[in-house]
Amino acid sequence: MTRKEQSESAVLLISCPDRKGIDAAVTRFIAENDGNIIHLDQHVDFERDWFFMRIEWELEGFALPREAIGDQFRPIAGKFHMEWSLRFSSRVPRMAVFVSRLPHCLYDLLARWKSGEWKVEIPLVISNHSHLEAVASSFGVPFHVFPITPQNKESQEREELRLLRAAEVDLIVLARYMQVLTPVLVDAYPNRIINIHHSFLPAFPGSRPYHSAYARGVKVIGATSHYVTRELDAGPIIEQDIIRVSHKDTVADLVRKGRDLEKLVLARAVWYHLQHRVLVYGNKTVVFD
Amino acid sequence: MTRKEQSESAVLLISCPDRKGIDAAVTRFIAENDGNIIHLDQHVDFERDWFFMRIEWELEGFALPREAIGDQFRPIAGKFHMEWSLRFSSRVPRMAVFVSRLPHCLYDLLARWKSGEWKVEIPLVISNHSHLEAVASSFGVPFHVFPITPQNKESQEREELRLLRAAEVDLIVLARYMQVLTPVLVDAYPNRIINIHHSFLPAFPGSRPYHSAYARGVKVIGATSHYVTRELDAGPIIEQDIIRVSHKDTVADLVRKGRDLEKLVLARAVWYHLQHRVLVYGNKTVVFD
Amino acid sequence: MTRKEQSESAVLLISCPDRKGIDAAVTRFIAENDGNIIHLDQHVDFERDWFFMRIEWELEGFALPREAIGDQFRPIAGKFHMEWSLRFSSRVPRMAVFVSRLPHCLYDLLARWKSGEWKVEIPLVISNHSHLEAVASSFGVPFHVFPITPQNKESQEREELRLLRAAEVDLIVLARYMQVLTPVLVDAYPNRIINIHHSFLPAFPGSRPYHSAYARGVKVIGATSHYVTRELDAGPIIEQDIIRVSHKDTVADLVRKGRDLEKLVLARAVWYHLQHRVLVYGNKTVVFD
Amino acid sequence: MTRKEQSESAVLLISCPDRKGIDAAVTRFIAENDGNIIHLDQHVDFERDWFFMRIEWELEGFALPREAIGDQFRPIAGKFHMEWSLRFSSRVPRMAVFVSRLPHCLYDLLARWKSGEWKVEIPLVISNHSHLEAVASSFGVPFHVFPITPQNKESQEREELRLLRAAEVDLIVLARYMQVLTPVLVDAYPNRIINIHHSFLPAFPGSRPYHSAYARGVKVIGATSHYVTRELDAGPIIEQDIIRVSHKDTVADLVRKGRDLEKLVLARAVWYHLQHRVLVYGNKTVVFD
Repeated sequence: MTRKEQSESAVLLISCPDRKGIDAAVTRFIAENDGNIIHLDQHVDFERDWFFMRIEWELEGFALPREAIGDQFRPIAGKFHMEWSLRFSSRVPRMAVFVSRLPHCLYDLLARWKSGEWKVEIPLVISNHSHLEAVASSFGVPFHVFPITPQNKESQEREELRLLRAAEVDLIVLARYMQVLTPVLVDAYPNRIINIHHSFLPAFPGSRPYHSAYARGVKVIGATSHYVTRELDAGPIIEQDIIRVSHKDTVADLVRKGRDLEKLVLARAVWYHLQHRVLVYGNKTVVFD
Repeated sequence: MTRKEQSESAVLLISCPDRKGIDAAVTRFIAENDGNIIHLDQHVDFERDWFFMRIEWELEGFALPREAIGDQFRPIAGKFHMEWSLRFSSRVPRMAVFVSRLPHCLYDLLARWKSGEWKVEIPLVISNHSHLEAVASSFGVPFHVFPITPQNKESQEREELRLLRAAEVDLIVLARYMQVLTPVLVDAYPNRIINIHHSFLPAFPGSRPYHSAYARGVKVIGATSHYVTRELDAGPIIEQDIIRVSHKDTVADLVRKGRDLEKLVLARAVWYHLQHRVLVYGNKTVVFD
Repeated sequence: MTRKEQSESAVLLISCPDRKGIDAAVTRFIAENDGNIIHLDQHVDFERDWFFMRIEWELEGFALPREAIGDQFRPIAGKFHMEWSLRFSSRVPRMAVFVSRLPHCLYDLLARWKSGEWKVEIPLVISNHSHLEAVASSFGVPFHVFPITPQNKESQEREELRLLRAAEVDLIVLARYMQVLTPVLVDAYPNRIINIHHSFLPAFPGSRPYHSAYARGVKVIGATSHYVTRELDAGPIIEQDIIRVSHKDTVADLVRKGRDLEKLVLARAVWYHLQHRVLVYGNKTVVFD
Repeated sequence: MTRKEQSESAVLLISCPDRKGIDAAVTRFIAENDGNIIHLDQHVDFERDWFFMRIEWELEGFALPREAIGDQFRPIAGKFHMEWSLRFSSRVPRMAVFVSRLPHCLYDLLARWKSGEWKVEIPLVISNHSHLEAVASSFGVPFHVFPITPQNKESQEREELRLLRAAEVDLIVLARYMQVLTPVLVDAYPNRIINIHHSFLPAFPGSRPYHSAYARGVKVIGATSHYVTRELDAGPIIEQDIIRVSHKDTVADLVRKGRDLEKLVLARAVWYHLQHRVLVYGNKTVVFD
């Protein structure tokens, strides 16, 4: 294991109007406090003249105690009108998983957590069916069923919200959850609900994309993970990928091939989020990879 | 060079309602005439109960002379209600290329022809601008300019059609030709006009797909080659592929990355067509690769 | 679900010297017994003049009872000097998984089995460590530990062989099993032991391929699934795939990215095998996909 | 066209031992001279504790005249023991192309230059055969033939070197040049000779990699572009990519599929180099993409 993996680090995610001197100001802040920068990624969007930065530095030997860093940084942030967030690698994020009947993404997420591949807590799984209860149980994760009807959807989400808050959840992952969320949940976790959609958006939004892909006769199918917004399948895209298909593939084959893609694309998006690598602006993302 | 590449061969492309005994009947026809099968690909679409086959065999030692094969096969075709076509590898197809101002696909096609990579003739290039005349000339290919306005489009296409027929053209390739064809040309060359569209259809049809892809913040861009039908960008898809993009990529970067993709995807589609490997049914293709 | 997925089918895998009339003979056999062919894939290797076929047909309405098919086919097979095997989709194959300390492939395989994605039985997991016992247990699969030393390897494999035979295992999957097998097991399951190697073979055989890939500065890493033969990492390749890496990736990043690739490449190879889609000849495979 | 594409810019490529304050020092230098940073990419290799940076800023409004920038930067470079180079986007690099008999990469490079896709000059093409003279001529590029024998190779390269120097060549591209260079040329253009090798190195170095790939039965083939060093096919890798193949593909098919890959991988590598995006360290590259 290299120095990089062992040590504790701090990450600053920054976005602000572009102007001269931002890099210099931020790096001087780290340098003057004796910090060692591990990663610095910076990007300017010239269509909007907007500046983005992810900077990660080691906390060992850093002059400021963790709890003082934000306060000391605030004047710099203010000067440049930054939106910013500060995260410490020692803080383990807490993630809720929403599912319906399809188990493949749930298995994949739980295995990554259980095997220690991801530094995350999964305090609960929520579903509109009891179908996957045994899966969660076999991993020792509490499973909560909230049956959904058009009539009760908002009230059920309010119950779910209570549960999520009690569990101090940072991130919600919709792992093939077959319900459209209402603003109750969407507005409570802005840019913190990740969905996996089984097409390369914006092609084939909505339901049954594999059937639509089959009918159109496409030669590739895709999957898209995105943050959930009020508009269905239209939130900021975090990650996409595709796989080739041919005339030989039935809808069932598309579903089979798509399953592996969904797992992979969702896992990558969640990993980027957990690593504090995603910045949202407008309806797009900057993913520092 | 293997036996396969050296010898002359015949290719039968067949589609018909699925029923028992088709494979047996076709292969018996070849076997009884002492033919050696090089490739046999067969596919059944179970949604439509439709049968597809591509069968290629060596003509050396085949009992029937070339000109008699069709006649002898006709009774079998009739029995199974086949749509079928017969092609000989010795016949060199003739291809017209339509362009506007962007040269990359034109260069790519001309280089494949000139270097002998493809067994094809390119008797002419047609354009609505004189912009790329020097490119065609440097390869020694006649270049014809037909300026297009909404008013003259149909009459110009009728002129083009005369030229194409005089040149005995089998296939038209729209190599980033920035005009929508009218039924004059579309109906004259059904499933014989190949277009390259610079998005992974059905996402981003129509104009300026790279701008739309940029605006949507997708993480992959694509290209699609398809047969041209009366409906814009909606014909049977022959080939698609994608390339990853990121927040760093401007529209100009998408255009740059897309160019290479367009060349590749168009070239693959044309090659499949030239090899007599594409069958159209409904609005989809079977590509025997 | 289409007709194809519902009905029971038979699959014949055939390889033999190429000569005229094989297709005709096999398809006539199916047709005369009133069978409906679902898939026919045929291939000729012209370097070796060798013929390969996979043919699948529905058993419903087939004139021969299952147990008579082989006997009736034998004269045809004899005439063409075929190597052949016959498999029925109703027969559920039995698969043993070998692991060491890395859980990701094991989780992936067990989840595919448990969720019903694959029609397979997993009667046991074998390991040289007790490390992953809890994983197997949480899926309800018996776990057997056989500690391996250079001295006891052969005798331990003989014990394992007894267990595998008692469990009527058809296929062994080495899911990052960190031991080289001896001929005791290799010879007992020819072309029925699938390994996953974490490089794009033949690059980086043997141990620590991610370290070697990092040292060489490659821009893609890969994974390879192959049948195990007596020669290390040199058996017939079933499936390979790659993922892009960059200078930013440490060895730990390669390991992380490679994990997902290993799961995918191994799962595809096992699926092809379970579907009776793989033919081995010489040291290569024909994979009918 | 965005501001970014229009304006002239300067690029600094920097590598040095990692220590605190490098980012701050470099960005302060730009900021104090009123420069606007367009791109800043920074990387630390923690295995070697080595720091890498590419920084690009607009020259419009920059306080220093172009010719003074290096002098003013030198003290900073000295303090941190930097290796560094400075390039202006207005400077058009000059590139020589070496070929033998295969035209596809040559066509591809010439088309990119001629169509204005790349901002580069191609003052000459050098070959050991006259075979491709007509290709160069059709693009109006001088073509020089230097027949090579084991006996005359060094003396011929000395002649070539004279020609290259007279043409003020910055970069040599070996576009399927089938000769191993001697130290005469290799040492004269360190990290400025780019080769395309038709395999995913380190698999299948040397000659006839497609034949080797066919014999091994791999399921992907690749291409690798790298800087040429004294050791054959062992220089720093700039770019690699792969394409899937199957049992259906003959050696001729691998050659055909590989051709497109070679063009693409070589073009990407050359483009990165022309954009001043490649840093070599040890035997590896940092490619700022």
